[in-house]
Amino acid sequence: MLRTHTCGDLRLGHAGLTVTLCGWVQRIRNKGSLIWLDLRDRYGVTQLIFEGETATPTLIHQAKELKREYVVKVRGTVRARKDSNPHMRTGAIEIQVQTLEILNTAKTPPFLVEAETDGGEELRMQYRYLDLRRPPLQDNLILRHQVMLQTRAYLNQRQFLEIETPMLIQSTPEGARDFVVPSRMHPGQYYALPQSPQTLKQLLMVAGFDRYYQLARCFRDEDLRADRQLEFSQIDCELSFATQADILTIFEGLVQHIFRNVKNIELPQFAHMTYTRAMELYGTDKPDLRFGMPFVELTHLAQQGGFRMFDDAALVVGICVQGCAGYTRRQLDELTDFVKQRQIGASGLVYVKYNTDGSLKSSVDKFFGQAQLSTWADALQAQPGDLMLILAGEAQATRQALAVLRLKMGDTLNLRNNTQFAPLWVVDFPLLEWDKTTQRYHARHHPFTAPRPEDISSLEERPEAVHAQAYDLVINGVEIGGGSIRICNRAVQERMLRILGFGNEEAEQQFGFLLEALEYGAPPHGGIALGFDRLCSLLGRGESIRSFIAFPKNNAGRDVMLKAPAPISQKQLEELGI
Amino acid sequence: MLRTHTCGDLRLGHAGLTVTLCGWVQRIRNKGSLIWLDLRDRYGVTQLIFEGETATPTLIHQAKELKREYVVKVRGTVRARKDSNPHMRTGAIEIQVQTLEILNTAKTPPFLVEAETDGGEELRMQYRYLDLRRPPLQDNLILRHQVMLQTRAYLNQRQFLEIETPMLIQSTPEGARDFVVPSRMHPGQYYALPQSPQTLKQLLMVAGFDRYYQLARCFRDEDLRADRQLEFSQIDCELSFATQADILTIFEGLVQHIFRNVKNIELPQFAHMTYTRAMELYGTDKPDLRFGMPFVELTHLAQQGGFRMFDDAALVVGICVQGCAGYTRRQLDELTDFVKQRQIGASGLVYVKYNTDGSLKSSVDKFFGQAQLSTWADALQAQPGDLMLILAGEAQATRQALAVLRLKMGDTLNLRNNTQFAPLWVVDFPLLEWDKTTQRYHARHHPFTAPRPEDISSLEERPEAVHAQAYDLVINGVEIGGGSIRICNRAVQERMLRILGFGNEEAEQQFGFLLEALEYGAPPHGGIALGFDRLCSLLGRGESIRSFIAFPKNNAGRDVMLKAPAPISQKQLEELGI
Repeated sequence: MLRTHTCGDLRLGHAGLTVTLCGWVQRIRNKGSLIWLDLRDRYGVTQLIFEGETATPTLIHQAKELKREYVVKVRGTVRARKDSNPHMRTGAIEIQVQTLEILNTAKTPPFLVEAETDGGEELRMQYRYLDLRRPPLQDNLILRHQVMLQTRAYLNQRQFLEIETPMLIQSTPEGARDFVVPSRMHPGQYYALPQSPQTLKQLLMVAGFDRYYQLARCFRDEDLRADRQLEFSQIDCELSFATQADILTIFEGLVQHIFRNVKNIELPQFAHMTYTRAMELYGTDKPDLRFGMPFVELTHLAQQGGFRMFDDAALVVGICVQGCAGYTRRQLDELTDFVKQRQIGASGLVYVKYNTDGSLKSSVDKFFGQAQLSTWADALQAQPGDLMLILAGEAQATRQALAVLRLKMGDTLNLRNNTQFAPLWVVDFPLLEWDKTTQRYHARHHPFTAPRPEDISSLEERPEAVHAQAYDLVINGVEIGGGSIRICNRAVQERMLRILGFGNEEAEQQFGFLLEALEYGAPPHGGIALGFDRLCSLLGRGESIRSFIAFPKNNAGRDVMLKAPAPISQKQLEELGI
Repeated sequence: MLRTHTCGDLRLGHAGLTVTLCGWVQRIRNKGSLIWLDLRDRYGVTQLIFEGETATPTLIHQAKELKREYVVKVRGTVRARKDSNPHMRTGAIEIQVQTLEILNTAKTPPFLVEAETDGGEELRMQYRYLDLRRPPLQDNLILRHQVMLQTRAYLNQRQFLEIETPMLIQSTPEGARDFVVPSRMHPGQYYALPQSPQTLKQLLMVAGFDRYYQLARCFRDEDLRADRQLEFSQIDCELSFATQADILTIFEGLVQHIFRNVKNIELPQFAHMTYTRAMELYGTDKPDLRFGMPFVELTHLAQQGGFRMFDDAALVVGICVQGCAGYTRRQLDELTDFVKQRQIGASGLVYVKYNTDGSLKSSVDKFFGQAQLSTWADALQAQPGDLMLILAGEAQATRQALAVLRLKMGDTLNLRNNTQFAPLWVVDFPLLEWDKTTQRYHARHHPFTAPRPEDISSLEERPEAVHAQAYDLVINGVEIGGGSIRICNRAVQERMLRILGFGNEEAEQQFGFLLEALEYGAPPHGGIALGFDRLCSLLGRGESIRSFIAFPKNNAGRDVMLKAPAPISQKQLEELGI
């Protein structure tokens, strides 16, 4: 190696040692015949000093040529610093340089290569290799590496086999949109990139592999919303001869293992909650449990008071916000405006202040007296000093709106601390959901998810009442992953596909290989997929998954550094027959 | 879990224990009221017995319904076998079954699910999930998992970071053909799937990551020859501040680590040989060094004897095959026919037998006397009993033909034992090769490979004399991987691209991002990529890489199980605008 140590290695114990370091010039302080320089690599920063008898005029001349981001190799002696810097791991020492070699020069970077940069998003994406030099992004990719390492360590130890599944597979119009790849050897025919290795991992179970995993690259040609990528990674797992409870235990253990070994965080035991309960209490199937503020239904207490908004509503539901009875008129108006925004869509907001003197003051005092408001306060378990916020209207929409308001209040009160983690298994999802647009049922999870055994007989008559053996992992209100026990019987799988609107021929054409495989001794099996980018972002307390991906696409699906996608040559198009 | 143990777990020490096993019915022996059954899972086979007081008529009735490949769950007691089977790990015990549950039935498989099967290639590809149940294929994928695991263990310990690079990148017409992916959001534009993450890993070095690896999926749209796949995996690595010698040492260590920890094989220190020497001694840049039989040039000894074939030849070159002086006329005629085949293309074969009585007998006795033949024997270091085989003609073609003949003689004499491993670094490759068809130079490795520093000045004047800082790893005549030190200077990279025939605009368009990155402080760096499928196949002593891939394509690039590629819907085509 060109170096004997890295820029993060040296300590006081190395004093007197002659070492060679390589790295990038981070900062230069030049006081004429005395020059200091911070040398940076992936492992840290080490201070170099040019002074004393080793600082020959030639060396000083060389050092003066250096600029930020030059790549250099220096040889020198480790010595104690006069003023040691406790904020740097190498802060106790410096290197008195004897020789200096410029390995490469550097143009002035278009933005500051420091923790805090002055570069805009688009510029940093174009020079991603410079952005990636900044310590926060270095840390993110190192964290990602460690999460991979710990994921594999845990699963390897539990007899899971990592098996690579193909990337060039068949297109399945069900679900999200596929990316397709034209075949040159078979003109007019296309491969598709996998949206997930779902059916392939099920075939691995049929093949008897029993415990499979893969850090799988998946592709979805979706219009990009904030923080989505066209390609993403998932921890993809499947196992045979396991119950739902076994799977939850194993993967709770995995997530705990990752948090413990990567971030030294001990997660609590994961909460379990049914889908129905989550909707009732938090209006969402991915509740943030770092704080309470559960929904309380007030419909029966609040109707027939002559207040039209309540009387006409299918649902009246509220939350109790602790300690906010002192909110001003203006703060309450802002909350009302917030819930009335189009994307939230509430028709209005009712508040009840439980004043510290015990009195109740509401925006509906015209319709409800103290006694009645008091029954609401009891239902909401409000205490003096609390603020009750109440919405009313169509049941589902009202719950969704209150869920958003609840999160906003959590943010406002700093109850959503990103050093705290509240993991939750949401279970007992409905198997199907009715899609008004297409007037048919959709699989809530995917078409291979098994119904609960006791519900199978209701599949055709009461599809909406059938529960799935499906589960989602939610941490801090973010869906980290989900999975299910799979159908392992051809007849049930065919019934499921029929309910989803597949004709026999269509089912055969798209899923014939799987239907056939289920006839040759498919073991009971199930699995899970965890969103790897999102998990890293949660662990790294990052805002965006993009900061945890080496070379992400922008919101238009472009790699602005590589300039992809781009037109291809006429020759390529002709060879492909397109 | 539905089971307490696997079918590979139980030993005599478990006798008396009540256990529950799940697995596939491998074999049934039915002697009326006494039934034996072999139950198989990924971990082994356990013998079940239905007899005695637990074998109620109901249980026996159930057991008689079983067929091959049914999936069952059994509960019973472990007991010592009367006749233990030393060939099975569980051969000392059997399970006396108490209860039996059929978890799934199975149709009769289209071929035998046993180590030796009766199924043809195409049928086994169609039912790959059944083929994968066979122990040899199970072993192959488990081996592959272990090679992955050991690769990561070794590299993780040495500060390499696993970093995922994108799959949707830009198309580069240089090199092999890209698979392309039409962009729906940007009609008329295409992503390409990576042929390797070459430029991206170089950018990671520019970004300061210093030691990178990835088990990378790569894609090449090539017409398939035997044992090629459209998609394949490579151990892809890059490091900064390392010399070629450092890189060879680290990756020699990796391969030794894998052999040691996966197969308990201690590899010898890797031989080093220049490209020139390999061509001289073995006529190929990937010589099989499990046996000797080096080439000896006889041109100066064998010309001007009046034998036209030699006199007209640019090269006369032979090998000495030990102990084969007794070859019959017919055997020698077969060898002559072999080298005269069109794909080998020699014009003829000259032999000299060094008889055990010390006499020399050749096919060219008319032209050469004993004394002359004796000089050849000396040059070839032949001993009494040996056979010398000599080819002549155009230098390169003759070497290539003799290389094939050498391998054939190695096979014939069982010198190519697949339990023996002869690893070799081939170094000092030429940087460029002249392509007669396109009348231009091609990069022998790729356009980013650095010339030897002392040769850079000859780049334009004597391109063919420039050596590259490139290296290949060859084991047993198979190229396992290769790599190089990369160009880290924009000016040199531009000169290289110019020599390869790129105009300035073309270079900018295709490699502008890399050229620019080289200006912002690129560290000296280099790397390597090892063919992962091939490495597994070598370790597993398999004939085909296909047997080490879960779901491979056939020779026409088709997945006959998934039926890919296939036509896609009109709606998809319209959305993509193709």
